[in-house]
Amino acid sequence: MKNEIYGIRTVLEAIESGQSIEKIYAKVNLSGELFNQLRKTAKNHNIPILKVPLERINKFTTGNHQGVVAIVSPVNYHNIENIVEDVILSGKEFFIIVLDGITDVRNFGAIARTAEAAGVHAIVIPEKGSAPVNSDAIKTSAGALFRIPVCRVAKPWYTLKFLKEKDAKIIAITEKTDTDYKSINYKGNLVLIFGAEDKGISPQLLKMCDLKAAIPTKGKTASLNVSVAAGIVIFEAVSNV
Amino acid sequence: MKNEIYGIRTVLEAIESGQSIEKIYAKVNLSGELFNQLRKTAKNHNIPILKVPLERINKFTTGNHQGVVAIVSPVNYHNIENIVEDVILSGKEFFIIVLDGITDVRNFGAIARTAEAAGVHAIVIPEKGSAPVNSDAIKTSAGALFRIPVCRVAKPWYTLKFLKEKDAKIIAITEKTDTDYKSINYKGNLVLIFGAEDKGISPQLLKMCDLKAAIPTKGKTASLNVSVAAGIVIFEAVSNV
Repeated sequence: MKNEIYGIRTVLEAIESGQSIEKIYAKVNLSGELFNQLRKTAKNHNIPILKVPLERINKFTTGNHQGVVAIVSPVNYHNIENIVEDVILSGKEFFIIVLDGITDVRNFGAIARTAEAAGVHAIVIPEKGSAPVNSDAIKTSAGALFRIPVCRVAKPWYTLKFLKEKDAKIIAITEKTDTDYKSINYKGNLVLIFGAEDKGISPQLLKMCDLKAAIPTKGKTASLNVSVAAGIVIFEAVSNV
Repeated sequence: MKNEIYGIRTVLEAIESGQSIEKIYAKVNLSGELFNQLRKTAKNHNIPILKVPLERINKFTTGNHQGVVAIVSPVNYHNIENIVEDVILSGKEFFIIVLDGITDVRNFGAIARTAEAAGVHAIVIPEKGSAPVNSDAIKTSAGALFRIPVCRVAKPWYTLKFLKEKDAKIIAITEKTDTDYKSINYKGNLVLIFGAEDKGISPQLLKMCDLKAAIPTKGKTASLNVSVAAGIVIFEAVSNV
């Protein structure tokens, strides 16, 4: 698989043809009508554009890049609305995982592996501040990232709002509660949110949750690795359904 | 911390003074009375000796190494018998994790973090074929490896025999069973065994177990990451006690 595409029009055409793009590097101060069109198209497809110095672009290619290089994603991104509607149409209840700012590639891959094994319908990640879906992530996922739909969204709060409207119970897994994850009823349409290793779940998403749940610990280790915590709660949830 | 010690007598004295040694590299065909003494002492302390070409030893140091270099362990190893006797004397039930051939440093560190957070009393690892307890393992453990006792044993079957005599229920976590980990009673003195990522638990240890338990999966991902699987079963066990 080719990892990079360069040139404004080429990148634009790649996006429009349905190619999944991880992110776009664009030279600072780039302007012009075609680049504006690329900016809009990228925004519509939830593809982040990073402004970088020209030297950074030159490192990718010696070709005529016109100040734009796109990193091709090894997986295809999916639309969360479509997935949820499909599950509802099939007469089942949906089970979605939202990862708010998980930046460690191996944690992300391990969570994808666990989620796919547990039968989770999709993983939602924010467009910005997430681990790249790269070959290390795929390796750690034992290939599960090719099998579980990953949905990249620009506004996670908007996705939560949509899931709420679809009658989902939204549960934040956070240390900031006394509610034991074992005491919760996971039945029904379910959304579990796991937060960043350092900062946890953002306040904006936290206040949209129906419930908060913690995994009580005994030792001096205050918190669990996020991929281990996700495994514990995901498998508690599926055994509860 | 100094990472290496060299010279036969120096290494011998380090071991006898209680310094934890990860392993010893010795030049092939090394002999002599002092080296024989080192061999015996290393064996008594469950320290593996690896026979390597002289060039390998020379890479560690240009000093007068006499064909012997020892790698200092960043953690102190403990005696499983002492730990178990202490728990029994305190009137509590013991909870021990045995890792049979977990070679991935990050998986080992993540399991140590989970085990310490869950209040597990000790982790038993075989002297041979285990992940090195190095700085990467300690980092992944979030420092838990400084807080949970690690017991390195020459013969894991002998340790299991000892634990059985102390009235432990020994449970193998393996895919090779239909018994759901959720259906098990974890009360009492408990030993959980987790196997190598590729080969699973060795047949010798598997036949010494009282029970086998699996985490049932739904997706196409046949198995979970071992540190995630350990988290799921360890926290199921502690919530069950």
